[in-house]
Amino acid sequence: MIKSEKAKMIAGELFNVYDPELVGERAIARQQVEAFNQLGETNPHKSQQIIKRLFGATGDKIEVHATFRCDYGYNLFVGEDFFANYDCVILDVAPIKIGKHCLLGPKVQIYSVNHPDDPQLRRNGAMGIGKSVNLGDDLWVGGGAIICPGVTLGNNVIVAAGSVVTKSFGDNVVVGGNPARVIREL
Amino acid sequence: MIKSEKAKMIAGELFNVYDPELVGERAIARQQVEAFNQLGETNPHKSQQIIKRLFGATGDKIEVHATFRCDYGYNLFVGEDFFANYDCVILDVAPIKIGKHCLLGPKVQIYSVNHPDDPQLRRNGAMGIGKSVNLGDDLWVGGGAIICPGVTLGNNVIVAAGSVVTKSFGDNVVVGGNPARVIREL
Amino acid sequence: MIKSEKAKMIAGELFNVYDPELVGERAIARQQVEAFNQLGETNPHKSQQIIKRLFGATGDKIEVHATFRCDYGYNLFVGEDFFANYDCVILDVAPIKIGKHCLLGPKVQIYSVNHPDDPQLRRNGAMGIGKSVNLGDDLWVGGGAIICPGVTLGNNVIVAAGSVVTKSFGDNVVVGGNPARVIREL
Repeated sequence: MIKSEKAKMIAGELFNVYDPELVGERAIARQQVEAFNQLGETNPHKSQQIIKRLFGATGDKIEVHATFRCDYGYNLFVGEDFFANYDCVILDVAPIKIGKHCLLGPKVQIYSVNHPDDPQLRRNGAMGIGKSVNLGDDLWVGGGAIICPGVTLGNNVIVAAGSVVTKSFGDNVVVGGNPARVIREL
Repeated sequence: MIKSEKAKMIAGELFNVYDPELVGERAIARQQVEAFNQLGETNPHKSQQIIKRLFGATGDKIEVHATFRCDYGYNLFVGEDFFANYDCVILDVAPIKIGKHCLLGPKVQIYSVNHPDDPQLRRNGAMGIGKSVNLGDDLWVGGGAIICPGVTLGNNVIVAAGSVVTKSFGDNVVVGGNPARVIREL
Repeated sequence: MIKSEKAKMIAGELFNVYDPELVGERAIARQQVEAFNQLGETNPHKSQQIIKRLFGATGDKIEVHATFRCDYGYNLFVGEDFFANYDCVILDVAPIKIGKHCLLGPKVQIYSVNHPDDPQLRRNGAMGIGKSVNLGDDLWVGGGAIICPGVTLGNNVIVAAGSVVTKSFGDNVVVGGNPARVIREL
């Protein structure tokens, strides 16, 4: 049996970004995202409905501010009481799981996709490699921070504004810098 | 006499982000910001009028490019001859004062709000702590730089592109890096 | 013969950002950019047409996602098979040349303009100094990275997410950090 590009994508194998099924799914997600961004702050209830339909899972309480961008939506699983401020970008190519009571500041970026080192594989329809991201409960990510593919963070982690998180950290720490390091224990 | 959440916010005390008065004020500000962003570059005169009404104080000469985001507007005091390029975000929870002849590059972020370390206080309607920001005259902030809560900068300071400014600096310096340090004197 | 401000700008000399010819050209470019951003993901074919008309040169295959921002467009020369993800900002004041098969992640910023150190020259209509940017083939720039004025990059370079590239690098390297350094050879 041949594995679909979508199955490869979610499993973290090299996959074709321009596979027709995936192109179609991104187009659908982007139109929902577009509708969400066009609403802006004019109708918070409808905004919330779009997000709940778009994400793979959410709690009852969720607040996302425009603009927001993601690739598929269905690979994004957030727990109860999720908040994302202005202009966040989440490329949910492999699953991204975020725990309960998490806050993202403005312009936070979370990525679960890489491209191969071999430049031939990035040409004319780049190949991608999904790497899932797992973030615990009570996470607070400061504005402009970036969380890279494959990162796991424990519970009660604070990511300082402007950090670039390239590796995983456990519970109860403040991390910051580029690349992010532990700044202090909580 | 009981202090309102708004009074606590502006005074730099722990306050309830979801206090109804504050929610209402943010909703009003966001609708003005939305109107500004919808205009884009189509009507610079009207864009300028919205900004002058939104901010706590401006000079006569002010140019802000869409998109722009702020939380209240009334806590944002900018001097004569202010310029902000594309996609800046300023969270003006405590007062943010910016001197005369200041330039912000694209995607600059200025924050005057923190959240508490205690995760219980970030759940279900995060508590915030305002920390005011004071920036002098003749400031030039390069694209993508972040200025953190509580920072004071003197006159004639250049902040290099992509810097994360976590502490205060005096007059006549170029600062850069994450966290930002003095790169050279001016 | 007197050199125009536009000629100075492109030649990398100190120029007046508020020269009427340049103000007019930016207004035209911004209206095209605005039309592009309003389209969002609703009409990829029309989006591509706007970009092809806006840029100084493109290949046949080019994909740019909204939002996108640039200053003039005509100073931006990209090779065959160019891809820019969400929310990129390219200030093309001096020429910016990008080779074939290049990928920009979301929120990438490329700048070919500086301002003078002398604060008097940044007041009331800032003076600018163009510094051209030259990027080779098979470049992949991770999300949120910034490429500073005057930078040259060779072929097959990977810029890690969130990097701030302040100096030039040759072929076949991964660079990262703030300021960016070589992380590994390819």
